[in-house]
Amino acid sequence: MAKKTNVKKVVLAYSGGLDTSIILKWLTEEYDCEVVAYSADLGQGEELDFIPEKAKKTGASSCHIVDLKEEFARDFVFPMFRANAIYEGRYFLGTSIARPLIAKAQMEIAAKEGADAVSHGATGKGNDQVRFEIAYYHYDPAIKVIAPWREWDMKSRTDLENYAKKHGIPVPTSKKFPWSSDRNLLHISFEGDILENPWAEAPEEMYQLTVRPEDAPDQPEYVEIEFEKGDAVAVNGVRLSPAKLLAKLNEFGGKHGIGRVDLLENRYVGMKSRGVYETPGGTILEEAHRAVESICMDREVMHLRDSLVPRYADMIYNGYWFSPERQVLQTLIDASQQTVNGKARIKLYKGHCRVVGRDSASDSLFNVDFATFEKDDVYNQADAEGFIKLNALRLRIAAIQRQNKK
Amino acid sequence: MAKKTNVKKVVLAYSGGLDTSIILKWLTEEYDCEVVAYSADLGQGEELDFIPEKAKKTGASSCHIVDLKEEFARDFVFPMFRANAIYEGRYFLGTSIARPLIAKAQMEIAAKEGADAVSHGATGKGNDQVRFEIAYYHYDPAIKVIAPWREWDMKSRTDLENYAKKHGIPVPTSKKFPWSSDRNLLHISFEGDILENPWAEAPEEMYQLTVRPEDAPDQPEYVEIEFEKGDAVAVNGVRLSPAKLLAKLNEFGGKHGIGRVDLLENRYVGMKSRGVYETPGGTILEEAHRAVESICMDREVMHLRDSLVPRYADMIYNGYWFSPERQVLQTLIDASQQTVNGKARIKLYKGHCRVVGRDSASDSLFNVDFATFEKDDVYNQADAEGFIKLNALRLRIAAIQRQNKK
Amino acid sequence: MAKKTNVKKVVLAYSGGLDTSIILKWLTEEYDCEVVAYSADLGQGEELDFIPEKAKKTGASSCHIVDLKEEFARDFVFPMFRANAIYEGRYFLGTSIARPLIAKAQMEIAAKEGADAVSHGATGKGNDQVRFEIAYYHYDPAIKVIAPWREWDMKSRTDLENYAKKHGIPVPTSKKFPWSSDRNLLHISFEGDILENPWAEAPEEMYQLTVRPEDAPDQPEYVEIEFEKGDAVAVNGVRLSPAKLLAKLNEFGGKHGIGRVDLLENRYVGMKSRGVYETPGGTILEEAHRAVESICMDREVMHLRDSLVPRYADMIYNGYWFSPERQVLQTLIDASQQTVNGKARIKLYKGHCRVVGRDSASDSLFNVDFATFEKDDVYNQADAEGFIKLNALRLRIAAIQRQNKK
Amino acid sequence: MAKKTNVKKVVLAYSGGLDTSIILKWLTEEYDCEVVAYSADLGQGEELDFIPEKAKKTGASSCHIVDLKEEFARDFVFPMFRANAIYEGRYFLGTSIARPLIAKAQMEIAAKEGADAVSHGATGKGNDQVRFEIAYYHYDPAIKVIAPWREWDMKSRTDLENYAKKHGIPVPTSKKFPWSSDRNLLHISFEGDILENPWAEAPEEMYQLTVRPEDAPDQPEYVEIEFEKGDAVAVNGVRLSPAKLLAKLNEFGGKHGIGRVDLLENRYVGMKSRGVYETPGGTILEEAHRAVESICMDREVMHLRDSLVPRYADMIYNGYWFSPERQVLQTLIDASQQTVNGKARIKLYKGHCRVVGRDSASDSLFNVDFATFEKDDVYNQADAEGFIKLNALRLRIAAIQRQNKK
Repeated sequence: MAKKTNVKKVVLAYSGGLDTSIILKWLTEEYDCEVVAYSADLGQGEELDFIPEKAKKTGASSCHIVDLKEEFARDFVFPMFRANAIYEGRYFLGTSIARPLIAKAQMEIAAKEGADAVSHGATGKGNDQVRFEIAYYHYDPAIKVIAPWREWDMKSRTDLENYAKKHGIPVPTSKKFPWSSDRNLLHISFEGDILENPWAEAPEEMYQLTVRPEDAPDQPEYVEIEFEKGDAVAVNGVRLSPAKLLAKLNEFGGKHGIGRVDLLENRYVGMKSRGVYETPGGTILEEAHRAVESICMDREVMHLRDSLVPRYADMIYNGYWFSPERQVLQTLIDASQQTVNGKARIKLYKGHCRVVGRDSASDSLFNVDFATFEKDDVYNQADAEGFIKLNALRLRIAAIQRQNKK
Repeated sequence: MAKKTNVKKVVLAYSGGLDTSIILKWLTEEYDCEVVAYSADLGQGEELDFIPEKAKKTGASSCHIVDLKEEFARDFVFPMFRANAIYEGRYFLGTSIARPLIAKAQMEIAAKEGADAVSHGATGKGNDQVRFEIAYYHYDPAIKVIAPWREWDMKSRTDLENYAKKHGIPVPTSKKFPWSSDRNLLHISFEGDILENPWAEAPEEMYQLTVRPEDAPDQPEYVEIEFEKGDAVAVNGVRLSPAKLLAKLNEFGGKHGIGRVDLLENRYVGMKSRGVYETPGGTILEEAHRAVESICMDREVMHLRDSLVPRYADMIYNGYWFSPERQVLQTLIDASQQTVNGKARIKLYKGHCRVVGRDSASDSLFNVDFATFEKDDVYNQADAEGFIKLNALRLRIAAIQRQNKK
Repeated sequence: MAKKTNVKKVVLAYSGGLDTSIILKWLTEEYDCEVVAYSADLGQGEELDFIPEKAKKTGASSCHIVDLKEEFARDFVFPMFRANAIYEGRYFLGTSIARPLIAKAQMEIAAKEGADAVSHGATGKGNDQVRFEIAYYHYDPAIKVIAPWREWDMKSRTDLENYAKKHGIPVPTSKKFPWSSDRNLLHISFEGDILENPWAEAPEEMYQLTVRPEDAPDQPEYVEIEFEKGDAVAVNGVRLSPAKLLAKLNEFGGKHGIGRVDLLENRYVGMKSRGVYETPGGTILEEAHRAVESICMDREVMHLRDSLVPRYADMIYNGYWFSPERQVLQTLIDASQQTVNGKARIKLYKGHCRVVGRDSASDSLFNVDFATFEKDDVYNQADAEGFIKLNALRLRIAAIQRQNKK
Repeated sequence: MAKKTNVKKVVLAYSGGLDTSIILKWLTEEYDCEVVAYSADLGQGEELDFIPEKAKKTGASSCHIVDLKEEFARDFVFPMFRANAIYEGRYFLGTSIARPLIAKAQMEIAAKEGADAVSHGATGKGNDQVRFEIAYYHYDPAIKVIAPWREWDMKSRTDLENYAKKHGIPVPTSKKFPWSSDRNLLHISFEGDILENPWAEAPEEMYQLTVRPEDAPDQPEYVEIEFEKGDAVAVNGVRLSPAKLLAKLNEFGGKHGIGRVDLLENRYVGMKSRGVYETPGGTILEEAHRAVESICMDREVMHLRDSLVPRYADMIYNGYWFSPERQVLQTLIDASQQTVNGKARIKLYKGHCRVVGRDSASDSLFNVDFATFEKDDVYNQADAEGFIKLNALRLRIAAIQRQNKK
């Protein structure tokens, strides 16, 4: 078959695993082009050192390893947590929020390398392809995107292994688990295999970041988290960078079995899909953040912001992080956080965390010393009558109207 | 002081406790009117038998005891749970949803008795006065409402006790707890006393409906809940009436320490307030309901509904259950539930519950047998390219525009 | 070139014009299949009698003409006007609301005829292809859809004319206008040609349904429209069927030059597009409907409904009329209309219409006779103080907080 | 009657008319306090020079006249028009947006003068009292507010005239009009008298800012308005300050009879009320602003913003301009305007205005030169198939599900 010749140099998001190794080889074969491998460190907890050598062996002209952990925590996870964004009531968006950053760094390498194409290993049925590609196009509307899973004929693991053998790519003797997973500093996700039966409980050996709640310590533990303008800045009194703070909370959450979620969710591409997630630190972070908001944030600001969060979560889930609508909405969210300065105390125990105290030295709307005014100046109980009467007025008029109709 | 003479007969929401006993007496004194006592059984788990005698001793002309448990569960709690309504991200609205029903039955008695006024024991700083009175006015826009706490001069417990002694009303030798609480079939709430320190953890002895998670069974337990049109109809295969089902789930939740919430919330009257809640059955119910929705409900219907829930929760929290806006919104919510038929399996353990399986024999949008069509007819991976390209089009045009500007 | 053989019988939405005539021929050639022609009468004001003969001459096996005018007005236009749906602040959705009905009737014919495919003449850059095809799939998820403009190589009018000549299809000696248009009982739309210059004013000869405002009568005219449950039922006291009523209002609007709109709009497929619209009757209808709502509808119901209309308008514009989300939202909209019974008086003059009076004998929330109650029972001015004080409370607390910070 | 002695010095919003003259006198009598008169020039087009003398004659210790026209246009009207805010689909909020500014300047004078109270002439049934007082409390949560209409016993014009005569306040021999009105640079409003009959057409002599459309020029006129970041900056090529620009547009609108609205609206205090408005310049401004947005603004940003405008309009209508929720929402609105740079051409004729052209040299998302890319790179018609297929996927799955159920 004739090679495709419209691409000169492609930057591939490369993990070192079987799939992206095959893609690397396939790109050189199919497109007869130079392939630059690229791996991002988002805290997936795997050894990346071996990757450059492996990439080159498989045919890459060069390989970039980029440490994105702090940028990930600071510019992606934290802004999202200012909104308490949760998709379909349960999912903390751990994969969704990582993809735009992976794509951003990939496009920066493409620019630096003068590449005319980018490629990724996401399948044609999932959300990730959308998240990657929308981000690519944001950075370069003319970039050529190669999504091998939508292009080649291979459909199964056997197809892949045959291709690997044919091209001398080492195949792991056994895949560790039959399900697929995606991990970073915020979470790990699982899908496929047994999860395709929506009634089947996820097996215990699936979980990676959290102990079984039954195996968590028998004594609860308390953690204090401090916030400035809506961002966590310290844990138990120790200031930490965003990535280190998230890692610290992951330790706490993991130890106590916190943050497991089992969700049948709606993909952007139109189908439902089962996912199991572990978000140990993020689960604690959300609980603490809401608690500090509860004491510092105006009611109407909170309700307005909350009413927009489902839409904000959709934007992130669907891959629109870099879109102008996410950006204008972020300005509202960030503005809502100016007074979110304070701390929360969270109890961790056997798979669950729960706020037990919250305070704010600077911005409490609860602690305000009413004594500076005569009690009646700030709240006169008699005012409630007028408040109720006028709020009920339209309902009373409607009731009169109903009576008159009879 | 001259007696107020504009009221002839008043129906009082009466609990048999000190406060409403004093109100009963005060009404007869202050208004020189007939007082009809009324108590509603919403599953608060207290003995109501003694109430009529006590009411009459304190001066009531008669006393009505009304069992509202099934109506409460069926027509108030269940419609609300069709929406997964939660106020400010945490509160299951257990008190808010009960008040309109208490007021409804009270107004029915007022109509039957030919009363020209109603009265309640809610204070002038809280939400409950609004919830009661808006409901009163809905049923009779001309009803006279007497809210003694907004009217009399008594401000403290000592004032009350002095009044009680003066009028021969028996005062409990010691108040059991220094905080106030409100209980029904859905929940119990606590506020006041130590909770006024937002940093202080609620004391263990406060909790009434749930065991301490540390004292819950060391073995997890599983429960299966079945839904029809969004309402729970069976637990572990046994069909139950709404009230009995809720009671059953309370048993499960209570045993495993599930449903404790500690919240600093925004009251409708404009101040922040700390509340501690136990909603054992409701917490399980919401988890199960969302799970069945996840497999039966269209994505866009769910997202539309979810985007309206903060507003719906506000309506209930603020006392607008009988308002036309709640009713038109309910039509949308109910319409969204026509396909919510299926079951969920929930794991209960040490203060937490979590869905582990969900299914629907009749309405699964996940189990659909794609095999009835050629794979490519239902989902062709190549379609994803066009999907992404067109969804990205406006972002690509914007990117071109940015490039041209440089 | 080998013929495509996977289609046996296709129902084509056929107008008798050049484009769909070529498509008809092309389908028989390209797919070697039976083609059933179908034309819907939605009040486009054109002669449809000649169509069957023309269709058969061009190769159709049969031709169906369906009168959809009343169904269009009653089940599509009127439900939409209950919401006052307007896209991007200006467009009355005249084309968008027609497409689903055209597709519905087409699918009914396909079912009757045992066809395995449907086809339409919408281009690959527009909204109409989406509207048609989403509706097709709603009725039959396995239907084969043929969209020739996305499939063939012809790109220009010259290409079409060459094809027509080659296949003996009569080509109109001159196209009447260089822009394209779509007309039905609700509106006519124009796009293309000179409109592609966003600064150029649409030429006067473009307009079909309305006189030039300058040429409208020098005397204003008044029209009274009566509504029942949100639907117009009578004009100037004469009850009319939905389609006849719409036609009547088109007469009024057309005579006075009402309902011209020039809009640069955002297409669902991601690009901006200039459209010019004439919606003479619809413009009057919306003005009148809002007026009757203003006197009959509860404030919060109206504001809730209004807040959802942009989303509702998007659903229609984007082609999701038959989607479950549009249907559940419609239940809310329809519920909001139960009290919308009354009449409005509209002044028509030189390109503009404006309500000058509204009333409701049965449901006015304005006319309610407050005299049935003592003035002070319904509205006591002193109540306003409490109303304001409590509504301002959170703002006052915040102000105290700001002062304390200084 | 004993004088109220809790106020030392009050700043009164004073117009020089009968009502506020009586209030001035009444305050000195009733509260035995110093009264500082204050009048704001918001472009109401009346002579304010005589006011200080009149105020002093009636008993004011001093009188402040403040020119707020530019601040009004720049910091209140223009931010609001960035949102295209319209209340209940029709009202441009001309009075609502002025009240907070009047209150702001009043509080500044109170601070300067060391006053402990403020007072206004708004009645107890209207919206204005809320707008004034919420703003007062924002600036000083402890300020004493005196609202004479809620306090005194006078109920009618006769009562006022008697009071005036008794206290030597000159009474105009005849009130010019039987309805009340409020005017500023943005609009004039009317209510009361004949307008209380919702069916009666407003009489022609009511209108102040616009000619009768029938009397407007027989020739249409065109006006070009230029925008920067969403704010109008030039008319017909001439740069103008915000207030001057608004005045210029008022001239155009007034001459052509543009901007008359007759609305039955819902007041914040719970009742419906008829209002007639003239907003000549504002009506043109909104039409032009939307047109420039249509060519410069991303679709999703526009739809997101538009979905929030009903709520934003409510905030302004209800008096929450200085609230934190309005402020955080404004950040989103302002962020949406960064690219709104361009111009619109509006046709004015006989009571109506209509965009006929729009353009943007710097930010057009329409004019983008697609030629910089191969046509197929930017839009490939074949992409539409995948776009439709995936958008329809959930609907197709639901259709399969329905078929399986049969």
